[in-house]
Amino acid sequence: MNPMHRLFHPESIAIVGASSSENKFGGTSFLIRFQDAGYTGRLYPINPQADTIRGLQAYPDLKALPEVPDLAIVCVAAPFVPAVLQTCGEIGLTRVHILTSGFRELGTPEGDALEAEVSRLADQFGLLIVGPNCMGPYCPASGLTAWGAIPGKPGPIGIISQSGGITQRLTEYLYSLGIGVEKAVSMGNATVLNANDFLQDMAEDPKIDVIAMYLENAGDGRGFINQVREIGCRKPIVLLKGGVFAAGARTIVSHTGSMAGSLQIWEAFFKQTGAIRVRSMEAWADTAIALSLLPAPAGNGVFLATGGGGNSVINSDIFQYEGLDVPELSPESMQLLRQRIPVIGSIAGNPLDSFEIFFNPRHMADITQIVVSDPAISMLVIDRMIQRKAFHIMDMTDLTEKTIDILLPVSRLKPTVVTVESDGGDLELGQKGITMRRRFCESGIPAYPTTERAARALVHLTAYHAYKRDHSL
Amino acid sequence: MNPMHRLFHPESIAIVGASSSENKFGGTSFLIRFQDAGYTGRLYPINPQADTIRGLQAYPDLKALPEVPDLAIVCVAAPFVPAVLQTCGEIGLTRVHILTSGFRELGTPEGDALEAEVSRLADQFGLLIVGPNCMGPYCPASGLTAWGAIPGKPGPIGIISQSGGITQRLTEYLYSLGIGVEKAVSMGNATVLNANDFLQDMAEDPKIDVIAMYLENAGDGRGFINQVREIGCRKPIVLLKGGVFAAGARTIVSHTGSMAGSLQIWEAFFKQTGAIRVRSMEAWADTAIALSLLPAPAGNGVFLATGGGGNSVINSDIFQYEGLDVPELSPESMQLLRQRIPVIGSIAGNPLDSFEIFFNPRHMADITQIVVSDPAISMLVIDRMIQRKAFHIMDMTDLTEKTIDILLPVSRLKPTVVTVESDGGDLELGQKGITMRRRFCESGIPAYPTTERAARALVHLTAYHAYKRDHSL
Repeated sequence: MNPMHRLFHPESIAIVGASSSENKFGGTSFLIRFQDAGYTGRLYPINPQADTIRGLQAYPDLKALPEVPDLAIVCVAAPFVPAVLQTCGEIGLTRVHILTSGFRELGTPEGDALEAEVSRLADQFGLLIVGPNCMGPYCPASGLTAWGAIPGKPGPIGIISQSGGITQRLTEYLYSLGIGVEKAVSMGNATVLNANDFLQDMAEDPKIDVIAMYLENAGDGRGFINQVREIGCRKPIVLLKGGVFAAGARTIVSHTGSMAGSLQIWEAFFKQTGAIRVRSMEAWADTAIALSLLPAPAGNGVFLATGGGGNSVINSDIFQYEGLDVPELSPESMQLLRQRIPVIGSIAGNPLDSFEIFFNPRHMADITQIVVSDPAISMLVIDRMIQRKAFHIMDMTDLTEKTIDILLPVSRLKPTVVTVESDGGDLELGQKGITMRRRFCESGIPAYPTTERAARALVHLTAYHAYKRDHSL
Repeated sequence: MNPMHRLFHPESIAIVGASSSENKFGGTSFLIRFQDAGYTGRLYPINPQADTIRGLQAYPDLKALPEVPDLAIVCVAAPFVPAVLQTCGEIGLTRVHILTSGFRELGTPEGDALEAEVSRLADQFGLLIVGPNCMGPYCPASGLTAWGAIPGKPGPIGIISQSGGITQRLTEYLYSLGIGVEKAVSMGNATVLNANDFLQDMAEDPKIDVIAMYLENAGDGRGFINQVREIGCRKPIVLLKGGVFAAGARTIVSHTGSMAGSLQIWEAFFKQTGAIRVRSMEAWADTAIALSLLPAPAGNGVFLATGGGGNSVINSDIFQYEGLDVPELSPESMQLLRQRIPVIGSIAGNPLDSFEIFFNPRHMADITQIVVSDPAISMLVIDRMIQRKAFHIMDMTDLTEKTIDILLPVSRLKPTVVTVESDGGDLELGQKGITMRRRFCESGIPAYPTTERAARALVHLTAYHAYKRDHSL
């Protein structure tokens, strides 16, 4: 058995430094989350001043426990961490998550010395340490969802990150869209276990289809490049690199105590490895969703269906600004389309301007059947307009479920996404938009709040699969 | 009096082709909107088959009216439009909005002939015609808000557009954010009154601070370039050019019967005129909002305040990807900041990583006071994190109102925007985000749903004011 396995699937957890107070962030907030999430393993709060914490027997130290737990979460102040690791080593407890901050990231001699001591103890006892200065491992399938108040949901995505905060956001994001995460790890200073280790683990995990990474530095550079290149041909790696420019790089030294590396080095890294480069939280999520839900497109031709001349024009520009093509349909497709599209108030072609697709599912089914067979088209983008107060449109039935039934089989033939735009200050419109996008995503069809975001996700989908075709045997 | 004035402020309107049926789009849907919006002028439905429509006396034709109305909205089928215009000319009715489609945009000899006839009649009688094939004028101050079911709100923005649909969306957008629109016009084929005419009118309107345009073609090219250049030094013109690429350009021929012009021509246009170039609906709105609410920044240095190391790093990268600077603060500012920011869990500097700004208004006031005096900083971006389920944060009081009180005076010294990120499928988070962004916007502080959109809006704000400084006396 892979020794990393029980790091994500521990059957028992000791929380070293669980406080009797429930109101501060620390060991007890993890304990509360485990209890709330219904973690079924054994939980051991360690606190020499307490008899019980949250209804559980507390122990004065790790040596007093009735068993050697699979995982220790260390939450005591930094100067006390080495002694805890020494005990772990002595009792044969090998998997440790150090939540505590106050190591190399301080930039002080004391911080550096403490971090060196962590490293030395890991070597001495063969400890698998996550951190220090991080939120640690997360795995909904094993109830390891202490990061927040959301229950967590297993799904096809793995996350490796040097930031707890944005990783919590991504797990929440993917949970709330009904997609889910198989494993995530916030690895902080990555003193012992680093990006290479987690990447190898997730590459081998058959439940993970897409790996999303946030990195501030590249650990050991050459080995990491080779590893990303090798894994990237099998599983897409969507990489948000933090600290590309000076201001972020300044922050990184204080955040995880590491060096960001220059823009040039990272440009070369992306070129050499085929890792997918994203720049924002939204693009990170959008791209991981597209890659995990959609098949490979054969080319870069996009068909756009929307309503309104202006929408058609600006949306097709957006796809072309991003580098995709919005090609003319074949004469056969055009002939079939013209039979279905009236001359006044609509425009047959690509983009398609036809308000009828918004309220007539039969029409949408006909159109997508015509277009999905067109050799010029590799991907479909369907605008699901919500009835807007600004338009002269009467109340419309919500056709989301019917639309899903029509688009899901189409999306298995050629990648298909929907856009549901609901931006602005209208609360009712916004609520409808959120609900509709979630329904599409959880049904397996990526849904995006803007055309720009849909376009960027499809650019990454197209580029990844083109890279994979060029670099696979 | 400017003859255009009564086009946007008519005291009486004839609707030629008002149907007795209320369920189709056309003259009667405009009539219903006028009545719902509380239009206080006189409304005359014209329909030879009806005695009354919606409680109003109907007239068989324009000649039967008790007065010459200020505006006629023509909704009859295209072949009947020339006869209506002939009557307008004969009775001295000079302002006409032709809603009807079926002219040059059809690409048929019949369509071209009808459009030529519209043009000829306009010349013969001096008619000021908006359209054909468009939603026409919109002006909340005069009750001219027939575009949709939103009441409309006067505000500092004017809109000139060749698309009814996206202009309706922008008016709705600006209404729902509490910002408002003074005048908008959807001008369709722009056969008689064109972009030049409306641009001149809005340039002279003291209630309009920012002009948002959507254009598919440039009317008379050279005159238009000169006019945009001249007006752009006084009022920002935010231009969404549709049909930059081939697919959009194909659509334009069918949409407004015009030619899109090449990418090269438009690149030169933007370079020569200082018009602000945006690519999407969202950037169009975001940029118009920033320009209408904020003062001129002195330079391109941005201060970012957020919580979390990862957020700080990726957000500062985003601003630098977009071409802005996230400079180091002065030694004096850093000394003051360090007195306020703890060493563990926060990072003093720019970007600032301090969760305390989210729940302590006093802290936010202190920080912004320090930073707004720093000569390296020209703009401030404050992340207003909503309590997330993914974080270990207890319930927080909504501090939006206190935050507005603190940031509003700061924003008058140096442009200040907030980001409120609430993306994903979490309905409650989304609702809070929409509500918070609207409160900030209606109070005068632009609020954006993503850091990328905030960055892009500030890029345009900075570039416009730099252009204006270079091109003004």
